[in-house]
Amino acid sequence: MKLLTEKIISDGVAIGTEIVKVDSFLNHQIDINLIDQIGKEFFERYKNSGITKILTIEASGIAVASLTARYFDVPVVFAKKSEPSTMVDDKYTSLVKSFTKNKVSMVFVSKRYISKNDTVLIIDDFLAHGEALRGLIDIVNQADAKLAGAGIVIEKRFQNGGKPLREKGIRIESLAVIESIKDGKINFI
Amino acid sequence: MKLLTEKIISDGVAIGTEIVKVDSFLNHQIDINLIDQIGKEFFERYKNSGITKILTIEASGIAVASLTARYFDVPVVFAKKSEPSTMVDDKYTSLVKSFTKNKVSMVFVSKRYISKNDTVLIIDDFLAHGEALRGLIDIVNQADAKLAGAGIVIEKRFQNGGKPLREKGIRIESLAVIESIKDGKINFI
Repeated sequence: MKLLTEKIISDGVAIGTEIVKVDSFLNHQIDINLIDQIGKEFFERYKNSGITKILTIEASGIAVASLTARYFDVPVVFAKKSEPSTMVDDKYTSLVKSFTKNKVSMVFVSKRYISKNDTVLIIDDFLAHGEALRGLIDIVNQADAKLAGAGIVIEKRFQNGGKPLREKGIRIESLAVIESIKDGKINFI
Repeated sequence: MKLLTEKIISDGVAIGTEIVKVDSFLNHQIDINLIDQIGKEFFERYKNSGITKILTIEASGIAVASLTARYFDVPVVFAKKSEPSTMVDDKYTSLVKSFTKNKVSMVFVSKRYISKNDTVLIIDDFLAHGEALRGLIDIVNQADAKLAGAGIVIEKRFQNGGKPLREKGIRIESLAVIESIKDGKINFI
């Protein structure tokens, strides 16, 4: 997606060889017009998949998922990373490791909000090692729901999170794919 | 806001005398059409305030803030509850206590994304004891930005978070105001 790639080039910051900092428009400050265009693009790619629900994970996925859901006219469900006292329902759980925050979190989704009648589109801001995406797929499987695929804003292909999932036949649509980060430069596929 | 009050009556669950569970449409599963109408309502109330930025806090505030920001055509900034390794900038910090999660969190906003030239609208899903709102106001003050006011989806008036802030002259617009929760019934003002 040209608009997104241009934004990453102009406003993203390469840190070392692993990290691209995009918190000026994606995961701290949010450029709503850009995210709305991203939502429209996910809709174009999945509009014939019969999506009934969009699943994401707090916190950075929520804005993208919400603006995407407007196009599909379906609810968003976001997996929670800590269990509020109000969450008294039965829940699906999965373990997710965050490399940037260096911790493992249990994530939760109430069984009320994903069922075997759902066709789910998973949305997230990044695909790196694939931990969050695996956790969300695990929850879709526990719910016995149909997985249409995933919509990822930025995939860091060199961290290989997508490969084993695509090999299992899971559809992953990434709008910007980074091949490498080197000498302060972000190289796209 | 009639649509919201009706939704709370039909889908909200009263727990004890303090908690109303609205995770079927607001803070776990998200009813995007309803939240879009909520965003439009906040726009109607603040459209003449010269808003340049919407500030919220992860995670439940993000969907409401994002759909509100579309109407204002301004960016969203969400305060983070843990510090990612990519956050190398100078930051504003404030301490926020969550009653439902029973913990105190340090929240962060990068100094890059709120400045003295901003007029800020704070958006959040709940106003109860006012801890999150006070933390966000503290950050707006640290940035020397102008605070236009706050837009709250549900205010639990009996927990008194809004009173001391309104007495200081802070504008708070709550779309549904709960007076009490008793015998499984939610009573609105």
